[in-house]
Amino acid sequence: MIPIPYLLFLGDAPDQLAAKVAQGIRDWRPENAVGQYRMPGCGADVGMDDMTLGEAWEAGARTLVIGVANRGGVISPGWKEVLHEAIGMGFHLASGLHNLLRDEEDLLHAAAASGVGLHDVRVPSVAYPIANGRPRTGKRCLAVGTDCSVGKMYTAMAMDREMRARGMNSTFRATGQTGILITGDGVPLDAVVADFMAGSIESLTPDNDPDHWDMIEGQGSLFHVSFSGVTMALIHGGRPDALILCHEPTREHMRGLPDHALPTLEQLRDTALPLARWCNPAARFTGISINTKEMEESAARNYLAELSDRMKLPATDPFRFGAAPLVDALAEFR
Amino acid sequence: MIPIPYLLFLGDAPDQLAAKVAQGIRDWRPENAVGQYRMPGCGADVGMDDMTLGEAWEAGARTLVIGVANRGGVISPGWKEVLHEAIGMGFHLASGLHNLLRDEEDLLHAAAASGVGLHDVRVPSVAYPIANGRPRTGKRCLAVGTDCSVGKMYTAMAMDREMRARGMNSTFRATGQTGILITGDGVPLDAVVADFMAGSIESLTPDNDPDHWDMIEGQGSLFHVSFSGVTMALIHGGRPDALILCHEPTREHMRGLPDHALPTLEQLRDTALPLARWCNPAARFTGISINTKEMEESAARNYLAELSDRMKLPATDPFRFGAAPLVDALAEFR
Repeated sequence: MIPIPYLLFLGDAPDQLAAKVAQGIRDWRPENAVGQYRMPGCGADVGMDDMTLGEAWEAGARTLVIGVANRGGVISPGWKEVLHEAIGMGFHLASGLHNLLRDEEDLLHAAAASGVGLHDVRVPSVAYPIANGRPRTGKRCLAVGTDCSVGKMYTAMAMDREMRARGMNSTFRATGQTGILITGDGVPLDAVVADFMAGSIESLTPDNDPDHWDMIEGQGSLFHVSFSGVTMALIHGGRPDALILCHEPTREHMRGLPDHALPTLEQLRDTALPLARWCNPAARFTGISINTKEMEESAARNYLAELSDRMKLPATDPFRFGAAPLVDALAEFR
Repeated sequence: MIPIPYLLFLGDAPDQLAAKVAQGIRDWRPENAVGQYRMPGCGADVGMDDMTLGEAWEAGARTLVIGVANRGGVISPGWKEVLHEAIGMGFHLASGLHNLLRDEEDLLHAAAASGVGLHDVRVPSVAYPIANGRPRTGKRCLAVGTDCSVGKMYTAMAMDREMRARGMNSTFRATGQTGILITGDGVPLDAVVADFMAGSIESLTPDNDPDHWDMIEGQGSLFHVSFSGVTMALIHGGRPDALILCHEPTREHMRGLPDHALPTLEQLRDTALPLARWCNPAARFTGISINTKEMEESAARNYLAELSDRMKLPATDPFRFGAAPLVDALAEFR
């Protein structure tokens, strides 16, 4: 686990989009960050207080999170002075960049000398077991998508937030780099070795209170040929009780695969459900989450109403219209 | 690729079972080995000529393959003298043990000094791409099983041998450690990082002649919750035209999962086929391979006849009764 709270390092981010990770932390776990650190010329602002390293330390921050992705995912030489100063003060560093912190010899030595950690969330830091397939106490919900990047993480995040606001017993379980940085913990599933994928998800969602829900972040899609094995491991390792269908209606082909059409929501439902029921006969779909950001509001609302009617499931865009209909279904889940 | 031919190192194997890898090479690729090397007290014999390192070198051997697995999968200190002598003479070493050759500092230094390779087939030696999902020329056949260890490798091996005996254009494609050591090449799929699983199988089965068959070694099972993601990656990365159902009829539960029943062959067919057709609409099941080693011959023959009739597919135990019926179906594949 990464020590919280964070100071969000935006560095010399050229624009807001480059600060996606910091924005995710700001949107979903503002309580996990005390402020932001921007270098001269920084073009991003996630709307938190600008702080020096010293001010952040005083405010309780213990980890400097690299909340910015620059071209190529590398650690910019221009950041090094700040990173070294932070390490010297006792900050841990955390990063989801391809270029690992631990592969920078100067940072490695400085961190060892200061006794702080370098958290590269892109690679697993623990040895996961092989899945044992045994039932676990508590309940689990998994978002599955017609494609990659259709809003599975946001769906689980939005549902988790709504559940906690209602006093329900819920934990968001991160399975990707952004989710891990947002929450400080999780499994970087796409970097786990094949034999241990399902086992890593069993570890992430252990026995829990009978009324507790693990809201598991989905990855890939059963219909995305590059990553379908990752999704399969989530279904069998996660052993979900409730499944949420996720979709982006305006997408013309599978992400990164121009010749591959998207499946229908019915195809996804009819493929995923028997696979989920193989290990958990109680599994069922409880709702539909649609990413409507490319649609006008009235068109989006009409689409959701028609879809809900057609598939006999609550349908919403949890980011735009709230996650209440999806959470109502979990609150009534028996 | 591991340089062939091999000298098979049986070491101080306590019994025949411990020499499973050497036996596999002897059974399936005897032309890849010139002989066996046994230490005093060795309890295994795969039926090849006993040779000294010098005799084997003269006979053309260029790699000493550790064809034995001892308890714990470690490199026994008692082997070191022979391994060092072999490295000094110019032999490469190859091993599928959990304990890696490259993690033994003395072997690493000796190999570097002699300019030979240490081939640990348990870990990938190349960086695989992310799958692109594009069609490839040539044809592919994949064995899928109701469970792990039901004979998928032997099925592909036996079919490949029969096809080559008939003059058909075929290549066995190894996806596990034993298969890689037997053939000298392949992908150790269970050790590949999740994001690259399907891509590694695309790399293993590239464009080929229109009449060429890649006979892909299966792994895991769609119904084995620990490894189903690996199987999924084989289906979408391998893009098979022909699929073979594999089963062991006397097994009482999924391997390693005492509370999990096996699926029926019909369940396996009905689950795997739509997944395969999602990327290759021409995919179909062409035969059934049954591991009948626990059955009397007449019971086995009756079972195969009934199964073939019930599922309208040729059925055989390719190891016991020959792979001809399965190969006939590929010869007629259009």
